[in-house]
Amino acid sequence: MSEEGARLTELAKRRGFFLQSSGAYGGVAGFYTYGPQGATLKDNLENAWRDRYVTREGHMEISAPDVMPEAVFEASGHLDGFDDMIVECPECGASHRADHVVEDNTSIEEAESFSTDRIAEIIEENDLVCPDCGTELADQPVEDFNLMFETNIGPGSSSPGYLRPETAQGIFVEFPQLSEYARNQLPFGVAQIGKAYRNEISPRKGLIRVREFTQAELEHFIDPEEDEPPIARVEDVTLPLYSVEQQQADDGDIQEVTVREALEEGILADEWVAFYLGLSKGWYERIGVDMDRFRFRQHLPGELAHYAADCWDAESELAGDWVEITGFAYRGDYDLKKHAAHSEEEFTVFKQYDEPVTVERPTVDPDMSVLGPEFGGDAGAVAEALEELVEREPDAFEDTEVTVEVDGDTYTVDTETAGYSVEEVTESGEHIRPHVVEPSFGVGRLVYTVLAHAYEEDEVDDEQRTYLSLPPEIAPTTVGVFPLMDKDGLGERARELAEELRGAGLEVTYDDSGAIGRRYRRQDEVGTPFCVTVDYETQEGNETQDAADADGTETVTVRERDTTTQKRVAVDDLAETLVALRDGDLSFDDL
Amino acid sequence: MSEEGARLTELAKRRGFFLQSSGAYGGVAGFYTYGPQGATLKDNLENAWRDRYVTREGHMEISAPDVMPEAVFEASGHLDGFDDMIVECPECGASHRADHVVEDNTSIEEAESFSTDRIAEIIEENDLVCPDCGTELADQPVEDFNLMFETNIGPGSSSPGYLRPETAQGIFVEFPQLSEYARNQLPFGVAQIGKAYRNEISPRKGLIRVREFTQAELEHFIDPEEDEPPIARVEDVTLPLYSVEQQQADDGDIQEVTVREALEEGILADEWVAFYLGLSKGWYERIGVDMDRFRFRQHLPGELAHYAADCWDAESELAGDWVEITGFAYRGDYDLKKHAAHSEEEFTVFKQYDEPVTVERPTVDPDMSVLGPEFGGDAGAVAEALEELVEREPDAFEDTEVTVEVDGDTYTVDTETAGYSVEEVTESGEHIRPHVVEPSFGVGRLVYTVLAHAYEEDEVDDEQRTYLSLPPEIAPTTVGVFPLMDKDGLGERARELAEELRGAGLEVTYDDSGAIGRRYRRQDEVGTPFCVTVDYETQEGNETQDAADADGTETVTVRERDTTTQKRVAVDDLAETLVALRDGDLSFDDL
Repeated sequence: MSEEGARLTELAKRRGFFLQSSGAYGGVAGFYTYGPQGATLKDNLENAWRDRYVTREGHMEISAPDVMPEAVFEASGHLDGFDDMIVECPECGASHRADHVVEDNTSIEEAESFSTDRIAEIIEENDLVCPDCGTELADQPVEDFNLMFETNIGPGSSSPGYLRPETAQGIFVEFPQLSEYARNQLPFGVAQIGKAYRNEISPRKGLIRVREFTQAELEHFIDPEEDEPPIARVEDVTLPLYSVEQQQADDGDIQEVTVREALEEGILADEWVAFYLGLSKGWYERIGVDMDRFRFRQHLPGELAHYAADCWDAESELAGDWVEITGFAYRGDYDLKKHAAHSEEEFTVFKQYDEPVTVERPTVDPDMSVLGPEFGGDAGAVAEALEELVEREPDAFEDTEVTVEVDGDTYTVDTETAGYSVEEVTESGEHIRPHVVEPSFGVGRLVYTVLAHAYEEDEVDDEQRTYLSLPPEIAPTTVGVFPLMDKDGLGERARELAEELRGAGLEVTYDDSGAIGRRYRRQDEVGTPFCVTVDYETQEGNETQDAADADGTETVTVRERDTTTQKRVAVDDLAETLVALRDGDLSFDDL
Repeated sequence: MSEEGARLTELAKRRGFFLQSSGAYGGVAGFYTYGPQGATLKDNLENAWRDRYVTREGHMEISAPDVMPEAVFEASGHLDGFDDMIVECPECGASHRADHVVEDNTSIEEAESFSTDRIAEIIEENDLVCPDCGTELADQPVEDFNLMFETNIGPGSSSPGYLRPETAQGIFVEFPQLSEYARNQLPFGVAQIGKAYRNEISPRKGLIRVREFTQAELEHFIDPEEDEPPIARVEDVTLPLYSVEQQQADDGDIQEVTVREALEEGILADEWVAFYLGLSKGWYERIGVDMDRFRFRQHLPGELAHYAADCWDAESELAGDWVEITGFAYRGDYDLKKHAAHSEEEFTVFKQYDEPVTVERPTVDPDMSVLGPEFGGDAGAVAEALEELVEREPDAFEDTEVTVEVDGDTYTVDTETAGYSVEEVTESGEHIRPHVVEPSFGVGRLVYTVLAHAYEEDEVDDEQRTYLSLPPEIAPTTVGVFPLMDKDGLGERARELAEELRGAGLEVTYDDSGAIGRRYRRQDEVGTPFCVTVDYETQEGNETQDAADADGTETVTVRERDTTTQKRVAVDDLAETLVALRDGDLSFDDL
């Protein structure tokens, strides 16, 4: 782990952001528990996401189960294709990701895209060994390992279930009903915030690559022929783009261009993806991602998921590495088509025309009294083949005879016997399969990024200080309330104030232990933006020289985290002031 | 399913509260998806819970993984004891809960407390048959079936994991670290809202008994000798109590008594449990539980969990059945003791004395130069036995000789050789194991209760109307915004207003389809408390006779759901007014 990572992980455990789970039993790789500060920070991020991508956009949010039946993942493709390559050490028995063994010990970079056979060859050719015990891995089988956690639903093993590897499938599978809720009007968006699970072979990198994590995904269903995003809302937003072209150029770099320019210049090919990049940039800033450590990177052709036409990742820089925090994918109709093919439902939307349309439709009406005697038991199959043919290739019926194939045998039928004709049909609309644009956020990685980017060190009163410069909306604790000392009634008054502030919906910590300076430092370390101190001036307001207190108003000091500046605020205005500071309706400078 | 249940389930699916998951693949019993209305309702309930049990009480909230390693459940007792009884039909292969088969077909009521052998006998004695196909179940084995979903962590089966059957274990297992966060000061509370899973043999009752559900649990860690709850805060709250005594009496009934009376009269034995019943009563009212369909019921002696000293359930009446929505349990030190015994950690808190205390401590210091020659290879075991004995029973050393037993053999040792003495030791504190008070809420059951209790029918304009009388804080949509018609600019203005209201953090639905009356009905059915309509008066305010509009103020109508009363409100005040109505700071009557 990098020094930055180690420092943050130590702070995270000590101050209650996150820690490896079940430590009393030695811990389990890839599972983390969010402590009191981390759980609240994560909750604040999720609420900010909901506000931006659901409430303000008028989208729907659902909550589907984590355990889903096998049929869903047969359709989605995860059962067959959601694999990593595994190789086991013949000596110590440790399992390793075979592509990582290759990448870590050769100059090969994208080993994931190779076949298992090729990886086995490379291991042999390079005499690669077990990273744990050093035993040679040559001749060990390299196999596909499915990353879904499997379990059984109900008694026995007849009904396998899987922990979903992405929240998206919980949305896609309910599309028929969700479409009803949207009254079959495209476009509409459906969001979900929830757990997803990937049974990583050998998790590493702490909170970045874990086995259980939280996703916030939005599936925006659109009519690809008609719907356009409200691009005007974001066209002036400047995006830091790292396109395929720049990645492949010798001295390629991030380009700072507006959404409009990126579309005009063809850097961004799809308006919907462009819209979401534009919308999201401001949101990352809002939650505290450092824009100097942020970029949008386009997927390289070899990297693109089978379902995606175009895909850009939002990436944050963490200890020198660029880490994906969001994927923006144009998934087309891949998912709905798959579910339609595997289930009894259509997964389409009926799109009403403005006016009914009359179209010519070629049909057949095979004369079974002729076909029966002629083809015997095959007559039914021949009739079906004719029905399929007329939909697929009506031109085949233009001659006097038409030929179809059934189970390898060829049958020739008079077009008259086939009952071929072209009918005029009036249609009020058509069934269309929506396309999907998907912004998919990894919440744990956002938490980690926001913490890493907020981490600051400075000197205050000749002492080294560590603080988290978190936005007040996101900080897990909004206010620390302290009595200068817990005596002479200061403690009682401070506890009363803490209660009052909690009543106003603020996240409050009360602390009366140790020197006041140490209490400030503790709050600095968890990123609490404001601290309120009850002191002797609070009690004796009207006896002091302080102007704010001259009329006997009861006041407290409010200290701002990043600047450590303190100001006196009347107790009567305290809750309102702090709420306004948290919500960004008031700045500390204007106090 | 009851008529009430069927009606609600139909409405829930049609209007997007909840539906059985993966319907396109035939569905899976026990798994439900919350639709757009349901997910938001559930989220609002969770936020109201967090406000009450975490923020306002100053407790901590954490978020632990759903998948936990086997060691945790070996310690907690779930691996051995978290079973239901299963019997399989020899003909159709269906699995059934054996105790349910007995309860449904005999007069036996608490079959769950019987042994598997006894249940098998009862099945045989009563010629009970498979509920699905009617085949006799006599001679079929009745076995324990563990209700945890099992999976494997990482490749192979060497590291089994389980989906947690309660969120509580995720808190208990991290106690050593959580105690640090609380700076080892008792009492402190740790809460968690998250998924829990129980692999029910044959789920029934829709949303009430499911395989995947959400719990909101608070573990309040206390010093049982010193800590007292702030009972004064709740002592005047009236509780509807259904005690063991009343349940066992011939004409026993619910008693309406205050918290203070219940404690004085001994109906409630524990002050902590009493505190949480008092605190929770008001919260149930706040979220819309009908207090005429609500009670607290004490667990009968046979029903009490092995760990619980006393337990009361909050129950709501649903279609004539009483259903548990919360369990209030005094768990003692059961859980922490178990984890301490199974892990390397202590699971205690160091409690500092006000003053150091000097105590007499009996010790031994066996003289091995005597024991060695005398007992040979057993000398070490004898010395250990002496050390154990002096802690357990120091009086045994008062004679000149002392006797210990090792592996069935008896050894006699001089107390002088044992090195017995009584030392004076000064201690600054002691390690104590906290007790736990646990309010445990089933969020899905709360959702169902709130919907069932809010369900109302009446007549409006000679038409039958269905509406959900949900509290504005909890209702999934706060405001419906409609143009009277989508023409003459009314639609544009209504869409603008909808945007503005979303910007103020309100949950808003925009609807311009169909007659205005139908749009009101749709919002009534999902419990939207307020509807805003933009009409011609909005545009032409200053030309009308309406007093509010006489000065040209732009106004809209605001309609209240339950009364269907409409009032005109100035557009400039609209967002503020609606926020105040939602938060309960303003009543519609005072508009």
